[in-house]
Amino acid sequence: MYADTSASAETNTIKVQLRAINPRPVQTVAVRILDDAEPKHIEARPITKPNTVAGEYWWEAEIPVVGLTQHYRWHIGFTDKTTLWLNALGEFKRTAPDHADFKIQVGGTVPQWYSQARIYQIFIDRFARRQTLSTQNLPQWSTGWISDNISEFAEGPGQRNLYGGDLWGIIDKLDYIQGLGFDTLYLTPFFEARTNHRYDARTFWRVDPFLGGDEALIALIEACHARGMKFIGDLTTNHTGLSHEWFEKASTDPTSIERDFYYWDENGDYACWLGVKNLPKLNYNSAELRRRMFGESGVVRRYLEPPFNMDGWRIDVANMTGRYQHDNLYPEVSLLTRQAVEAADPAGQKVLIAEHCHDFGPDIKGNTWQGAMNYAGFTRPFWDWLCPETVVPRFLGTLADLHSLPGSEVVDTIDAFGAETTWQVRQASYNLVSSHDTPRIFDTLVGPYGAFVGLAAAYTLPGVPMVLYGEELLLPSVNGDNCRVPMPWDEAFAGATDLADWLRSLAALRFLPAVTEGGLRWVYVSDDVIVFARETASQRLLVGLCRDMTAGVSVNDELLSFGNPTQVLAGQVTVVAGELQLEFANGVAIAQWEL
Amino acid sequence: MYADTSASAETNTIKVQLRAINPRPVQTVAVRILDDAEPKHIEARPITKPNTVAGEYWWEAEIPVVGLTQHYRWHIGFTDKTTLWLNALGEFKRTAPDHADFKIQVGGTVPQWYSQARIYQIFIDRFARRQTLSTQNLPQWSTGWISDNISEFAEGPGQRNLYGGDLWGIIDKLDYIQGLGFDTLYLTPFFEARTNHRYDARTFWRVDPFLGGDEALIALIEACHARGMKFIGDLTTNHTGLSHEWFEKASTDPTSIERDFYYWDENGDYACWLGVKNLPKLNYNSAELRRRMFGESGVVRRYLEPPFNMDGWRIDVANMTGRYQHDNLYPEVSLLTRQAVEAADPAGQKVLIAEHCHDFGPDIKGNTWQGAMNYAGFTRPFWDWLCPETVVPRFLGTLADLHSLPGSEVVDTIDAFGAETTWQVRQASYNLVSSHDTPRIFDTLVGPYGAFVGLAAAYTLPGVPMVLYGEELLLPSVNGDNCRVPMPWDEAFAGATDLADWLRSLAALRFLPAVTEGGLRWVYVSDDVIVFARETASQRLLVGLCRDMTAGVSVNDELLSFGNPTQVLAGQVTVVAGELQLEFANGVAIAQWEL
Repeated sequence: MYADTSASAETNTIKVQLRAINPRPVQTVAVRILDDAEPKHIEARPITKPNTVAGEYWWEAEIPVVGLTQHYRWHIGFTDKTTLWLNALGEFKRTAPDHADFKIQVGGTVPQWYSQARIYQIFIDRFARRQTLSTQNLPQWSTGWISDNISEFAEGPGQRNLYGGDLWGIIDKLDYIQGLGFDTLYLTPFFEARTNHRYDARTFWRVDPFLGGDEALIALIEACHARGMKFIGDLTTNHTGLSHEWFEKASTDPTSIERDFYYWDENGDYACWLGVKNLPKLNYNSAELRRRMFGESGVVRRYLEPPFNMDGWRIDVANMTGRYQHDNLYPEVSLLTRQAVEAADPAGQKVLIAEHCHDFGPDIKGNTWQGAMNYAGFTRPFWDWLCPETVVPRFLGTLADLHSLPGSEVVDTIDAFGAETTWQVRQASYNLVSSHDTPRIFDTLVGPYGAFVGLAAAYTLPGVPMVLYGEELLLPSVNGDNCRVPMPWDEAFAGATDLADWLRSLAALRFLPAVTEGGLRWVYVSDDVIVFARETASQRLLVGLCRDMTAGVSVNDELLSFGNPTQVLAGQVTVVAGELQLEFANGVAIAQWEL
Repeated sequence: MYADTSASAETNTIKVQLRAINPRPVQTVAVRILDDAEPKHIEARPITKPNTVAGEYWWEAEIPVVGLTQHYRWHIGFTDKTTLWLNALGEFKRTAPDHADFKIQVGGTVPQWYSQARIYQIFIDRFARRQTLSTQNLPQWSTGWISDNISEFAEGPGQRNLYGGDLWGIIDKLDYIQGLGFDTLYLTPFFEARTNHRYDARTFWRVDPFLGGDEALIALIEACHARGMKFIGDLTTNHTGLSHEWFEKASTDPTSIERDFYYWDENGDYACWLGVKNLPKLNYNSAELRRRMFGESGVVRRYLEPPFNMDGWRIDVANMTGRYQHDNLYPEVSLLTRQAVEAADPAGQKVLIAEHCHDFGPDIKGNTWQGAMNYAGFTRPFWDWLCPETVVPRFLGTLADLHSLPGSEVVDTIDAFGAETTWQVRQASYNLVSSHDTPRIFDTLVGPYGAFVGLAAAYTLPGVPMVLYGEELLLPSVNGDNCRVPMPWDEAFAGATDLADWLRSLAALRFLPAVTEGGLRWVYVSDDVIVFARETASQRLLVGLCRDMTAGVSVNDELLSFGNPTQVLAGQVTVVAGELQLEFANGVAIAQWEL
């Protein structure tokens, strides 16, 4: 991964600032960076800022950045000879390993539309259909049609049945989606395949005719763009389907160039994704495969360029791509993917996001994938906080039973995983409480206002909110964990709530600089209440989340001694005699200050 | 670094075991590993072990290792639906990033002599001389002779004066060194140079004639081997001296092949180590430089092979080697160094240790350097514990004032840095309380028995003890941090203590399997007392360290409910009614059990 940074010709500096309230007498403030892997200390100077409160002090230092990313931590030496370190995990008296340093990027940043985005995820087959179903248009591989009656669906959660959702159907629902405050679609794969999830592509060269083909995709993206909406597709670079045209050549003709696109053992058997034989794993030792995926006319560029003009890719199991036993081509494959996106997008308006269900920090440096689906540092901690003790939803590929952990564990988890990556990657990662691979909110965020609380976190913590289709209706999963239920368009769904209004309100927050650019500071954490601030020099957003029926809390926060908020956006937030008073509505209190 | 693992053809499995005392009812125990960067859970099975105590349970799992290293953590699922993770940082209810997983290597291990070694570090110029000093043999660059009178030395701590220590002088002192229980010499550089530290080599092709030349080095190493002692040299792969024959050609002839051995800017200026113009930095983009350093007749191999037959290299500022701004050739340079050592040493009896003054975990994976000088995870925490509040010794290149931290911070620091690397690298790293680059014990380990306590830790915690010459006499530093004082051979040193006896006693511990192979478990930690156990299946060593005048402590440890120790090696250790009673002598209590 280190070598990647040499690809950037930039040598730049970044100003970093430190704020303290009523510190003990300070002798020196410095920033410790790494310079050719050797620590170096750069002295910070005291600065004055407008609108400070009594006892508020600021320091500033200018640090060099070689390549894309710089590590740094603060060192405060007090006149009493004691010292304090401040890194991404908090304050330390002792020395700490480098991995928890603050990490900041120069370059590799996302376009503005993405930093403000509200993403609606659609599992194409289950969302909406324009086509009429018939025995004629049922694909041969399918076990048959399912209805949108959820109780009926419960009987058959397999991968080969079809509800029949198509791309034309999505076009018909853009009013609905946009009306919920979403401005970006992220669709699971649209390539022809032999399952309803379509992660088993038969080809990368055309959109599934059953979904409306290339024509429908182009029409959908054009319709999005006409409304100011964006569109992100889903690509498996890790594997193809067993029926993929490449695999068919590879398996029938051992002399074909496609033979080298896959891994074969001495018995003629092929490697596949997690032992699923339907998903043979791609072998990036093949230069021809690299060309077809990442080259000028390759798959990655094809759909980002006219006539498709997609606004980004989400890459399936990005963490595994290029890695197989002793083969570690991940650094190259991730960089080639990035370079293909950049070649298709000289204006830097498209995004590249990794699926990575676990600790993505070590793998994502911002110069390849710009962000990840933040299951590890967002989904899991909020499930741990808001899920019931009696229900145990399983998380992808883990044995870890969830159970109701206190607020401090939530905050520690967010900090721990956040510290592993750059601030920019953290800001560019999907904040999601559910996806097509997890149980739905209905089954996980079950506190009295769990859905309200979890979605508020997704829209206001560092990251970009991504919401699975149907969560606005609080649709239940089936059998506890199958979330791929059809949208119940033709009936008033019994479980429907006022979540749609809530999503619309939250969408407005995505335009606040405090949310898109502001830092994160935990203000108050108890077992059942988490209060945090997102702050820029000129704006503060305060978000209080509560998982029980508590009506309110009082918080003493020295940095808030400046009077009542400019605007209260949820619940009640007032400042009384230097104490912050929060009254929750649906478990949430949000207020905004202009500074 | 990932790519390096593919250099190993091994695919192997390792058995890992978990012990618990009186756990809550357990439903499942599993080990979580990474498989192509994706977590995978392998179920552990309960096993029975001999000599267990009441309530003691064991589980075992067999985990695959691809390449050199495997990450793993334990997952314990209780019947009450709660879960617990166990990683290198301890127990977690929440999920944790991968970096703190346990890390274990297959291969890349050190020879047995090294795992049992007691290393004596000699700064050649200041140790012992056989030669007679005269104006004739004073090198031209030198400012003059200094005497071994420490008060006189205090006047001139520069780098160009000479005491006149030589390699013949060391041969004369081998009885003395071996008599202190040491079996390995580590010498600072022996190449001709223009300073008394000789990190500014003028050539790598011959030993400084002033030290006795190649002849003396060969004689010294032969003398060591004849006594069963080993010898480790010191090489700067990062830079040469300004007067180096390569640099002289490079700077006088821009068309020379040596020109490319260094970094030049547009003004003809050269890059150097931390801005020190006397130490121009080597540029490993040059294939010829790589050949001269790592090739068949290269520097690294030359001194490991006959007639020299050194037993290992310590590489100066290994962390910076090959790294310069956008150039990151560190992975290649470290691997080439390793390969050169292996080529010279088919039997695997030589070692390669990195100087790395900071967090070495991310840089050292065991397939290149086998260990590091463990300043970060050993020296610093013990200084933090044992140094005075009033004296502030500076640590290499840092601003961090030291101050007396409690035992818990010491343990947290050791755990934090230890978690960053493999167990094998940790075991192969130098445990040092001082070196030629730091103040001496006299100035840092000032508790009532600081020297006894710090040295006991160095000999019994995971790692290989390295002791700077003269610490056995408790020599003071000069001006608070210059440790490079001459050995006072000709006088009874006033500060001499019974440390020599203590070093002899500690040396015997290095042959215990509990020390060379055993795990590490913290048994009891308070502000002033740290008790830990090193354990194999058949042996336990218990070490108690105390930084104040406390006569003793009582410790309740469930794993110790088996009676009095087989042998008490320091202080008093007894088990009374299931409680461990420790009485310290010189701040230390050590006991051993055969299980």
